[in-house]
Amino acid sequence: MKILTLAALSATILMASPLIKQATDAGLKPIPADPIELLKLIDNPANPITYKKAELGKKLFFDPRLSKSNLISCNTCHNLATGGDDGVSAAIGHGWTANPHHLNSPTVYNAVFFSSQFWDGRDPHLEKQAQGPIQAGPEMASTKDHVVNTVTSMPAYVEEFKKAYGKYVKINFEKVTDTIALFERTLVTPSAYDKFLNGNDSALNSEEKKGLKTFIDKGCATCHTGIALGGDMNAFQVTAKYKFADVGDFKGDENSLVKVPTLRNITETAPYFHNGAIWSLKDAIIEMGRIQLGQEISEEEAKSIETFFGALNGKKPEVKYPQLPVRSATTPKPNMN
Amino acid sequence: MKILTLAALSATILMASPLIKQATDAGLKPIPADPIELLKLIDNPANPITYKKAELGKKLFFDPRLSKSNLISCNTCHNLATGGDDGVSAAIGHGWTANPHHLNSPTVYNAVFFSSQFWDGRDPHLEKQAQGPIQAGPEMASTKDHVVNTVTSMPAYVEEFKKAYGKYVKINFEKVTDTIALFERTLVTPSAYDKFLNGNDSALNSEEKKGLKTFIDKGCATCHTGIALGGDMNAFQVTAKYKFADVGDFKGDENSLVKVPTLRNITETAPYFHNGAIWSLKDAIIEMGRIQLGQEISEEEAKSIETFFGALNGKKPEVKYPQLPVRSATTPKPNMN
Repeated sequence: MKILTLAALSATILMASPLIKQATDAGLKPIPADPIELLKLIDNPANPITYKKAELGKKLFFDPRLSKSNLISCNTCHNLATGGDDGVSAAIGHGWTANPHHLNSPTVYNAVFFSSQFWDGRDPHLEKQAQGPIQAGPEMASTKDHVVNTVTSMPAYVEEFKKAYGKYVKINFEKVTDTIALFERTLVTPSAYDKFLNGNDSALNSEEKKGLKTFIDKGCATCHTGIALGGDMNAFQVTAKYKFADVGDFKGDENSLVKVPTLRNITETAPYFHNGAIWSLKDAIIEMGRIQLGQEISEEEAKSIETFFGALNGKKPEVKYPQLPVRSATTPKPNMN
Repeated sequence: MKILTLAALSATILMASPLIKQATDAGLKPIPADPIELLKLIDNPANPITYKKAELGKKLFFDPRLSKSNLISCNTCHNLATGGDDGVSAAIGHGWTANPHHLNSPTVYNAVFFSSQFWDGRDPHLEKQAQGPIQAGPEMASTKDHVVNTVTSMPAYVEEFKKAYGKYVKINFEKVTDTIALFERTLVTPSAYDKFLNGNDSALNSEEKKGLKTFIDKGCATCHTGIALGGDMNAFQVTAKYKFADVGDFKGDENSLVKVPTLRNITETAPYFHNGAIWSLKDAIIEMGRIQLGQEISEEEAKSIETFFGALNGKKPEVKYPQLPVRSATTPKPNMN
């Protein structure tokens, strides 16, 4: 009975659109439509998502007082209002310092689907990633002590940690960053493309379908694969050293490899590449064809792929801007130096 | 009939609390409980508040792309998550530059009730105020052209302006800043104190009432008056040159006067004074007694007044964090220099 049902379903999908099969065969996967399946996929079994933890994580994500200056929050570079990044070529942090390798801030939306974090892919988990920028000199320039002292100095934060994790919670740096990462896990953006891959043939129009087909036929999906259409260090062909101008001094990982970025919401996250060197999405597509795939992608084909990319723009979670706990007499003071 | 009703109402209030009468006689006024009366009070007849304009103004308020760097929005210094300001002593803007006079960012909450804007009170209206920080070198460092070119380069913004103002709208710098100011006009925070002044005697507890009485008896309400408990250049005694340490080089207006700040949400907006020199609210209260009123306010009295200040913390508007229009090929690029 079950086998018959699955076969019938499978047949329906195939009849609906051979393109869905082609996309699936190419390794492309949708964000699950079933909320429980989605929750299972984005969850961290070591720290299961709950409403209270996510609310607390949101506050910490937006709290500039975790930074040395009290002016830079996670949301400064991963701005949820502008595609989950900052829209500048290289991240600017404490003291107006640009990232020393001229690295572009990656989007936080759908980062939960990445199998590796950071441009050199050095961490597999959001929990570990969240510890980095807070402490990095040219980013939030904070310390573990500053973060813990700041959070524990505010009774309202302590109360929320107790409500989220129980009254014996130990509020250390890892607990704070784990909670930020937990909020980030909820930042997924289902799109028309997901409806399509989930079996709704009419979710994409004919131009978008044509672009998707070109995208697969050209080989783009070899690296831009999986749910995030990227985010994976281990893709067959990884984005090795870029050859275009202004490469900067970023050398990637030990194999000189740079992580393949996600293509979700890509029309909202210019400029492009790890060094933010190209502002035009069409130019970026053509550049990738030339460098990574060794073939010319025509203007027309690039425009078609760009049209498909529009269908990857997802519905953003509705975020109520938080009211943050009020500082106390013992809250560390801002330091601009 | 009408006279009788009013007299009866008045008697009720008097019976309910002589303190309400004392406060009213001292010039203290509540935020109106009647939403139409409130709307009339906060509205700008030259540009009446509508839902569509306010939504658009919110986007502009949160949009860092109006700044030269694309990194600083109105919300950077007037952060709606932290009492409507930035919680640092002197505002930090473009290039990590501190305000040259070491001026502290005032809260944007309830600024609609101020009769003068800026610390030297040079502008009476929020519409005029909104033009300042956008163009100021050490703040957003933008230009009128940059703002207009940025906004008009994004079709979604143009569409929203048309929906808000009609299809023949001229999107110039003043239209953008007027729309930001319109959003700011909606940022009012009614509190327990307002319920009390509006006739609900039990809205304040006995400690808060005691603090309010001390506040009036000491003479604080002479300057901290009206709906905003401050915000007025024309108060009888204005805050002349401060005598405490680290006064900076800010000289105030042509009479060497500094604007009296609002006390609403004051427990959320440390550090205090125009130069952000004092972090403790209790110390600030005692300092003001000494300098402005020529009298010692005891520790106990200061604590009592601080307790009353807690009742001034209002309910903040629920702000859904916006999704901003996507930049186009013609949107001006960020400039960090």
